[in-house]
This record gives sequence, C-alpha cells and structure tokens, in this order.
Amino acid sequence: MSRRATSTFRVRYGETDQMGVAYHPNYLVWCEIGRTDFMRELGAPYAEMERQGFYLAVAEASVRYGAAAYYDDVIRVVTALDSVRSRSVRFAYEIERIEPDPTPLARATTTLVSMDGEGRSRALPPDVLDLFRT
Amino acid sequence: MSRRATSTFRVRYGETDQMGVAYHPNYLVWCEIGRTDFMRELGAPYAEMERQGFYLAVAEASVRYGAAAYYDDVIRVVTALDSVRSRSVRFAYEIERIEPDPTPLARATTTLVSMDGEGRSRALPPDVLDLFRT
Amino acid sequence: MSRRATSTFRVRYGETDQMGVAYHPNYLVWCEIGRTDFMRELGAPYAEMERQGFYLAVAEASVRYGAAAYYDDVIRVVTALDSVRSRSVRFAYEIERIEPDPTPLARATTTLVSMDGEGRSRALPPDVLDLFRT
Amino acid sequence: MSRRATSTFRVRYGETDQMGVAYHPNYLVWCEIGRTDFMRELGAPYAEMERQGFYLAVAEASVRYGAAAYYDDVIRVVTALDSVRSRSVRFAYEIERIEPDPTPLARATTTLVSMDGEGRSRALPPDVLDLFRT
Repeated sequence: MSRRATSTFRVRYGETDQMGVAYHPNYLVWCEIGRTDFMRELGAPYAEMERQGFYLAVAEASVRYGAAAYYDDVIRVVTALDSVRSRSVRFAYEIERIEPDPTPLARATTTLVSMDGEGRSRALPPDVLDLFRT
Repeated sequence: MSRRATSTFRVRYGETDQMGVAYHPNYLVWCEIGRTDFMRELGAPYAEMERQGFYLAVAEASVRYGAAAYYDDVIRVVTALDSVRSRSVRFAYEIERIEPDPTPLARATTTLVSMDGEGRSRALPPDVLDLFRT
Repeated sequence: MSRRATSTFRVRYGETDQMGVAYHPNYLVWCEIGRTDFMRELGAPYAEMERQGFYLAVAEASVRYGAAAYYDDVIRVVTALDSVRSRSVRFAYEIERIEPDPTPLARATTTLVSMDGEGRSRALPPDVLDLFRT
Repeated sequence: MSRRATSTFRVRYGETDQMGVAYHPNYLVWCEIGRTDFMRELGAPYAEMERQGFYLAVAEASVRYGAAAYYDDVIRVVTALDSVRSRSVRFAYEIERIEPDPTPLARATTTLVSMDGEGRSRALPPDVLDLFRT
C-alpha cells in the first residue's frame, strides 16, 4: 500500500482569488489531478474505467490548509492509496510548493465510491481491485 | 427578434483573481447563465432539450471587456437572440453592474450549433425553431 | 448561536462534469456563497471586512456528499455559525436541492482564520466578534 | 514577430461538462497558460511584471471552436505575438490535441491592455516592449 504518484504543475492565474493566493476549492481539483495520475501509473486509467461503465464518485473530502500557494508557483501533489474496499477507495494527498521555495502547503483525503452509469453502487472492477491491493 | 432575458447574480469570491477583479473567462460562464434563463423564459428549457437529444455546442465566442467587475457586485446579463438558422443560433449579451454603481461592463456574442449526442450536426427541434422565430 | 442564512441559486452548466452531475469542488464554492450571505445578513459584509484589512482564510474544509446535484437544479445552502474564537470561526453548511425534488445533498464545515493583508494572524474585528457572539 | 511558446497539459476532469467535453470558457484559461509560458520564455515573467506594478488586463477575447477536447487528452497551446503597441498587446493561440489523436481544436485571440495597480492605463515597461519587438 505504499504506492504513490507525483503530479507537478504551476498555479494558474485563474486559480488565484483577490486575496492573492490560490482559491481553496482548487486544492480538490489538484487532488483530482493526483488521482488521475495515480490511476494511470497504476495501469488503470480512470478515463478507461468510465468507458467500461465504472464511475468513482467523491463521497467525502477534507483538506487542511497551511501556507498559501501563489500564481506561477510550482506545485507537487503526492497521491497515495489510504485504504481500499470492494466498493470504495480512499486517497491521501500531500500538496507542497517545490518552487520558488519548497514548502508543505496542505494535506487532504478523499473517499470515492464505485458506481455504475446510473449512480447505483457497483463493486470496483476485479482487475482494478487487484492493482489497488498489490 | 426583440426577445430578451435578464439574469441577475452577485460576483462570487472565487470568480475574482489576484488583480482583484472578476477573472475574464467567467464572463462566458455568465453568458451561459443568460442563455439558460433565455431558453427557460422562451419555454424551451435547455435541460429539456438535452433530455430529448439536442445539444447546443459553442462554435464561436467573443467578448469586449470594459470596466471591471468586483466581488459581491450585483451583475445583470441581458441576453438577446441575434440570429437563427436551422442548425445554429447566435446570442448577444450585455453585461452590466447594477450595484453598487450602475456601469456597463462588457458585450459578448456566442454562436451555438445544434448537435446530437454523438456530436453530429442536427437541425434544431422544430418547436424550438418556432419559438426562436416568433 | 442559532443564526443562519439561506442562499438559493441554480446549478450552472459549467459546474457539471462529464459524470453529468455538479463537480464536487464546487460545493466549497457554494459554501463560500453561503458565508458571503451569512456575513451580509449579520451586518458585517465580508467585502467591507477586507477593505478594513481583515481577511478570512480557509484553514480546514470538509464535505460529505450524498445525492448528486444536476444542471439547473435549484440549490439551497443553509449556513450556520458553528463556533467562534477571537482568531477563527467555524461554519456549518447544509446543502440541499429544493427543485425539482427536495433532497438533502451534502453537509460541510469550514474553519476560517483571521489574518491581515500580509497573511499574519490577526484577531477578528471587535464589532464582528460581537455580532458573531450575539 | 515569429516568437512563439508551446504549452502542454492534460484536460482535467473538472474542465469537462455534462456534454462530455471540455467546457468552452476553459479555452480562455488555456490561453492564459499560453501567455504565462510565452512571457516566461521571453524573459519577462508576468508574475514579475505585476510585482513591478504593471498589470495586463484582457480587453478583448475571441475563440473559434472546432473539434471538442476530452478528459485526459493531451492539449498543446501555441501562443504567438500578433501585434504590440506601447499600451496593448495582442496574442494569437492555436489549440490542438496531440494525444490520443492529433487534431486542431480551436483558434483564439486576446488583446491585453497595460495598466497600473489602480486600473489606469500605463505604458508597458520599456524592457518588456523591447523584448516584444525583438
């Protein structure tokens, strides 16, 4: 369960608000980028899961914000698998600035539940479960 | 063709950027609110059109920005039909602040094309065309 | 402490994602709308606080998502004060659909810390604290 | 004036809408990423310009949309300088998908005006003008 993925990107101008920092809901967008990269590196791209009729819906999200992020900062999100069940999965994220000055920024977790295209609970695909559990 | 709809809302904090004003791509989001209200008042709610398999995709958008909009300003979007064809429709928008100080802010136009769920060109529903042309 | 504010708005098209539902980080945007309305009704508009050099930065946010929200749904956010300290305040939110079918959607909390324009901790303005504690 | 910058990124899940494609206002966000990269490569990072009291505000934007962009597509924005005046600058953008299947997606232009921190017209910094005109 020590699998992790690393995503790196810059803070977009449109992600800032008039306080001059990255607007806080964007951290959940960044976590989504982390999950996308995690799933791709795992060998189970999320876009492919949806094509096969499996959807991961966010059931719970929480973020603890520390130092602020600024426009054009280089951000790194480290995404790790926190726990897996047959119908849900929980990810943990560490969000940090790596440029100009390396600084931890926030920690977050999200719990996602597996659903079919109609929004009904559906067990995760067996091959994805296997990959998660490896 | 003098039909118009009026939408009123406040600038959200998250719509501002570090320049302290509403971030410019949001004006296209506001135009979309204008279209949604226009279609509902016309008697052809867009959500209903999609349920019947008709999609309006933006093919062209342009905005001329004047005075800036600030957090918590009350904004009014006046949406009017500019032209209609069997497979496309063009809207024009006037965006203004009405509180605290009434000020014109921007003008925009968007051209939308009618499509089916697979992204193929499809004539607008006859009843919607009739409403547009009334 | 039973003060609450009610905000009502429709789900914007741009707030949906390809799952066909409102994208989850937007719920934090909706909470911000709730806070803005809460502060205005309290008699302490947040825009005015910032003009006086007080900033409320989100230090913690969590959301539990239930039923999904769809494009054009009428959403109601009920914002309540959960707790107040001299340098921080915690809000609780109930997010529900009121049209077309009334349905509870989510619950959220956010903790905000009071800062000056440089990002340093700063006690809340005494008059705002008084209003919070009334 | 043949200077150009290339930006590459993936379509984020949150950038899609319920039509299953990237929501059209995001193309202006992508253009902003293009400008940021253009200015950095030019040797005049925009973040630095703002620190020196120069702001570039979008005065006009237009986009022509062709084929749609999908979640996780790899997008390339090629940003070029279209024209320069002492108080304004115009950029042109070509937006294309490079993965999975190379496809041109859209063309856009934006005109930006130079301002001071109070929103008053201000000539571009001489060194930036020189770089633009090289």
